Amino acid sequence: MGLLVVGSVGLDTVATPFDKVEDALGGSATYISLASSYFCAPVDLVGIVGDDFPKQYIKLLEEHNVNLDGLQVINDGKTFRWSAKYHYDLNVRDTLLTELNVFKNFDPVIPEKLRKSKFVCLGNIDPVLQGRVLDQLSDSQFVVCDTMNYWIEGMKEDLLKLLKRVNVLIINDSEARLLANEPNLIKSAKMIREMGPEILIIKKGEHGALLFTDDIVFSAPAYPLEMIYDPTGAGDSFAGGFVGYLHRTQDITPANLKCAVVYGSAMASFCVEKFSTKGLEELSYLRIQDRFREFMNLSRFDEKQ
Amino acid sequence: MGLLVVGSVGLDTVATPFDKVEDALGGSATYISLASSYFCAPVDLVGIVGDDFPKQYIKLLEEHNVNLDGLQVINDGKTFRWSAKYHYDLNVRDTLLTELNVFKNFDPVIPEKLRKSKFVCLGNIDPVLQGRVLDQLSDSQFVVCDTMNYWIEGMKEDLLKLLKRVNVLIINDSEARLLANEPNLIKSAKMIREMGPEILIIKKGEHGALLFTDDIVFSAPAYPLEMIYDPTGAGDSFAGGFVGYLHRTQDITPANLKCAVVYGSAMASFCVEKFSTKGLEELSYLRIQDRFREFMNLSRFDEKQ
Repeated sequence: MGLLVVGSVGLDTVATPFDKVEDALGGSATYISLASSYFCAPVDLVGIVGDDFPKQYIKLLEEHNVNLDGLQVINDGKTFRWSAKYHYDLNVRDTLLTELNVFKNFDPVIPEKLRKSKFVCLGNIDPVLQGRVLDQLSDSQFVVCDTMNYWIEGMKEDLLKLLKRVNVLIINDSEARLLANEPNLIKSAKMIREMGPEILIIKKGEHGALLFTDDIVFSAPAYPLEMIYDPTGAGDSFAGGFVGYLHRTQDITPANLKCAVVYGSAMASFCVEKFSTKGLEELSYLRIQDRFREFMNLSRFDEKQ
Repeated sequence: MGLLVVGSVGLDTVATPFDKVEDALGGSATYISLASSYFCAPVDLVGIVGDDFPKQYIKLLEEHNVNLDGLQVINDGKTFRWSAKYHYDLNVRDTLLTELNVFKNFDPVIPEKLRKSKFVCLGNIDPVLQGRVLDQLSDSQFVVCDTMNYWIEGMKEDLLKLLKRVNVLIINDSEARLLANEPNLIKSAKMIREMGPEILIIKKGEHGALLFTDDIVFSAPAYPLEMIYDPTGAGDSFAGGFVGYLHRTQDITPANLKCAVVYGSAMASFCVEKFSTKGLEELSYLRIQDRFREFMNLSRFDEKQ
């Protein structure tokens, strides 16, 4: 079975201090799928677009062995659009536009033959929709889930219901503090794991990522980039690398979860080195492994003999 | 030769959401000395206090093999006092009072027999004073230097002159961005190393620390503390552990600098677990080594075979 990815597919208009793109390929399911495509095939994407969605993007996804049987294309529909402007300090961004369009009526339908997918990645969408995806699956999945402050603030009850059904939650540090209502990140992690997910990953952008399980706390470094061109999709690329590597190795032991976090971090670092999805389009597994080893060199130290 | 530490010695009144202390032992030289005292002896402290400085604090320092020959005690003088209040989010603090008192006229005099100290740690004081310390020393020292936003903003020219004379600069991430006037931390690091220090350490509080040399970038994790009682002195404790370990091992190779950063992080973690200097008062080298190994477990991962 492939890796099942559900989330948004859209067209992004993004400006950073360095460049600007219009109607570029975007959306959480897109980034997750492209990132995970280097680890496993096929990646089964479930999402929705309008018939204005450019054919070249369909082609690009298919060239990366992304199976689009689950992509609903709505006649006379308009694809989800998002626009943002990043400041000189790339940690600050203004969202200029969010046009849901066909996404407003998205009801994820999981094709029959994908309902037994063992690894599932729920991109950052409405937690009610994420729950509806799980309703259609047998209950033996390993479910990785992303969310964001918008759902934590606006749909907390629904999110809390969902969290009881997922194995891994991936959020960033400010979202973790918001969800737990606690400034200490380590305490927040403990509280969030009590909400359901036995595995929690807290992404900290330029500060790396933390992995929490029953047995371990693991701190992964961030790749030291002098230049970040476009932070869009970094979190989704992380999720794609993480779950893609787990699917590839079919191993969810703590030692391998650590590696998966580093592969996730590696994919995020490739993502932000170029605009839009460009950083994920022409990689190879060998190049990704090289970066994995750079992460190793970055954080390894040995006791003096 | 011992380790030469120059900086402030003072009385701190600190409130956090958890507790409050009045006129507790404080100051950069104090924290550096106590932290490094577990690694090397003697630690030679140069600083200034008034004759109101409690005898019990003198005793405490001496019990930790801190040599106070270089501590000027001013008759009828009043010791430096500092007061601050931490918010619920301990990353935010209000400074309520800074009374320089005898510190206003501090002219560091390095006792003759300490002028050939090989390892020198300049605590966070006026860069002109830090320079005057170096003037009195032979030029073969390994100099570790701390500073802060106050000097970066108010005495940048003096600070830049000093930076050409130090081997290691230790600052936090916001100070690094301020000094380089650049939001990207990795680019900031490159720019700061061009200002003089061949070794740069950027402390990131709960996100760990980064070490930059000609040859390496190293990312050390932070110790995952659920409860931070009092962040005061964490940076000084880091510097003390770092330079103390280097003095102990007399080894400044990149591999050993990494270990020194982790020992620094370990001392900072002990510091914030209790109020004021309490967390540094009753440690042992064995306990510190145990924590060093916890840092190792926290960040180590191995490639799947």
